[in-house]
Amino acid sequence: MHLNPIQLFDTESSTFTYILSAPGSPEAVIVDPVDRQLERDLRHLERLGLKLAYVLETHAHADHVTSAGELRDLTGAKAAVPSGCGIAPAEMQLNDGDVLTFGNGEMIEVIHTPGHTAGSMSYLWRGNVFTGDTLLIDGCGRTDFQSGSADALYDSVTRKLFALPDDVRVWPGHDYKGQSVSTVGWEKRHNARLANRSREEFIKLMGELNLPKPKLIDIAVPANQNLGLPHGG
Amino acid sequence: MHLNPIQLFDTESSTFTYILSAPGSPEAVIVDPVDRQLERDLRHLERLGLKLAYVLETHAHADHVTSAGELRDLTGAKAAVPSGCGIAPAEMQLNDGDVLTFGNGEMIEVIHTPGHTAGSMSYLWRGNVFTGDTLLIDGCGRTDFQSGSADALYDSVTRKLFALPDDVRVWPGHDYKGQSVSTVGWEKRHNARLANRSREEFIKLMGELNLPKPKLIDIAVPANQNLGLPHGG
Repeated sequence: MHLNPIQLFDTESSTFTYILSAPGSPEAVIVDPVDRQLERDLRHLERLGLKLAYVLETHAHADHVTSAGELRDLTGAKAAVPSGCGIAPAEMQLNDGDVLTFGNGEMIEVIHTPGHTAGSMSYLWRGNVFTGDTLLIDGCGRTDFQSGSADALYDSVTRKLFALPDDVRVWPGHDYKGQSVSTVGWEKRHNARLANRSREEFIKLMGELNLPKPKLIDIAVPANQNLGLPHGG
Repeated sequence: MHLNPIQLFDTESSTFTYILSAPGSPEAVIVDPVDRQLERDLRHLERLGLKLAYVLETHAHADHVTSAGELRDLTGAKAAVPSGCGIAPAEMQLNDGDVLTFGNGEMIEVIHTPGHTAGSMSYLWRGNVFTGDTLLIDGCGRTDFQSGSADALYDSVTRKLFALPDDVRVWPGHDYKGQSVSTVGWEKRHNARLANRSREEFIKLMGELNLPKPKLIDIAVPANQNLGLPHGG
């Protein structure tokens, strides 16, 4: 049965964080938590009576720093991360096809969706897919740095994510236009970058975006590869 | 079984809007929509493949204007409002104990919770209570204008809302501190204004707040009593 996650938003980086839980168990999973929202997230877990089983990352972010390490250390949760992102200190290195279980038989399926970064993963839980920066609402993540590849992103979205049932809800890693959630069916038909566009057209489009370098990248990526914890600490 | 709503946020007025739906039917209900977010809300309904059955208001708001009338006219939904709020053009005037049904047997229980305004209602659906401005996370709505009463709010919260099971999730009408959701159990034990405080202490506290008059009140209340539609339109 479909269950919505709880969706939280960091206005400074426009990042969504998700809390997943289901009836029958207090165990929960948090996806892509942001360092400066640590207190907010801990208070949500406390108010909802939830116990964190996993801190899950979709990739090594370039635009904000994760609180995964701190959350792990404060709650006893395990950090679970994509194997190809160089996030060494995590307890679990996830690969395509892995299934993460928590709570009363809840299952999270791991789907390797490279393109925004080579290691990026999406996570499927109860009719929801958490797409990180691979598929955004009416858009997609950039592919011009940090092992990005428009070619790989095209396959990840059109062959893997668009192969999910139309009514699967799409919960992205960011939104910059006040939108919160979409569906596979809608994105397949209407996504401004990926619907009805050939691979060649998509690669050309992505190659011409000329986006500025993310301000935080030189700090954020190494920090996130250490789960947001101080190096050598 | 507990289902989370979809929670949307208007940053200008710090107002939460909720979309309620459940598996087995495309019918949905929206709670407290905001005028300037009409386009956002319509796009969510479209992307999710939902058909609006009801537009539900918790009270006649003083701090923002509703899009209830426009949403009703554009989607064919019915407007359902508290009977004591003077919102004349709504199809349904709700009273305490009423049950609104939608979708595949979904039931919304109407709970009269006066205090912020005399007509204010809370709505209970699948282990979630939508409390409008009656009970906020770690706080409560003001009671110093628009037929407000600290005495009535004390009863509404302590006798009605705090009588719900501890694990019922509390989804407020506003939050000003980045928090999104709470539970009855947490608010009963920790709410800064209402936990472990006598009626007399609470009334004294509310009487001493000295809050400024809401900027929009003279425009918003008459507009909202007309479902946000132009008068005489």
